[in-house]
Amino acid sequence: MTKALALAQRAFELDEVPVGAVVVVDGKVIGRGCNQSVCKSDPTAHAEILALRQAARHLGNYRLTSATLYCTLEPCSMCAGALIWARLARLVYAARDPKAGAIDSHLGLAGVEFSNHRVEVVSGVMKEEAAALLQQFFQARRRA
Amino acid sequence: MTKALALAQRAFELDEVPVGAVVVVDGKVIGRGCNQSVCKSDPTAHAEILALRQAARHLGNYRLTSATLYCTLEPCSMCAGALIWARLARLVYAARDPKAGAIDSHLGLAGVEFSNHRVEVVSGVMKEEAAALLQQFFQARRRA
Repeated sequence: MTKALALAQRAFELDEVPVGAVVVVDGKVIGRGCNQSVCKSDPTAHAEILALRQAARHLGNYRLTSATLYCTLEPCSMCAGALIWARLARLVYAARDPKAGAIDSHLGLAGVEFSNHRVEVVSGVMKEEAAALLQQFFQARRRA
Repeated sequence: MTKALALAQRAFELDEVPVGAVVVVDGKVIGRGCNQSVCKSDPTAHAEILALRQAARHLGNYRLTSATLYCTLEPCSMCAGALIWARLARLVYAARDPKAGAIDSHLGLAGVEFSNHRVEVVSGVMKEEAAALLQQFFQARRRA
């Protein structure tokens, strides 16, 4: 999660909502991402999506069945959907997103009944650090 | 939708689940996609995601506020989430997806209460053609 937080910091420096994510398999980071929707002109360029895509490219397989995704914010419906398609084993996230979070805040997408895949979820890891960074970003925005 | 169906046919030829999508602004196609998750080793490479990404790149803006997405199958939660982040104006889809569809079959993501964006939806356009292609694909798979 420290690595994901460093990526969130990078997003902050790019003037993007500070969220970072890494994909880990067998203790090795094989995918990294930080939010870049605005600078890449890509509505799908969330940290999680970029990290999952890089990891799948690395493995040469769209299925990441033994992977864990660490991310600094609760995934939205787009990212949660991507976790399911990737058959991700485990999600570890830091702060909750009461607005758009689709794991615990809304929808419960890690284990909906109609899906044929369930993702194990751990939440709250380093949530203070992740939330502080987001708060700092939005406070700076409001002042701008 | 004819163009989206032609892209679905292309996915079929790539041995991918035959779904196609196009993004239209002012009567002009600015984004095209066909399902390529397997051949691209990318769990996010659904037709809709690829079409949205291409359209946003074309406009130099992740927001597609005046765009219509035509796709041959009801979007899943990942793709529906992407439509929301792209602030898409309108979605026209062909066949329903009772398994993973997140617009009308499950979740109702085009207009959930917690979202700050609603997508106008038209469904059923050329649904017989889209469904026939999918059926043909899965029948061939079962025989293989």
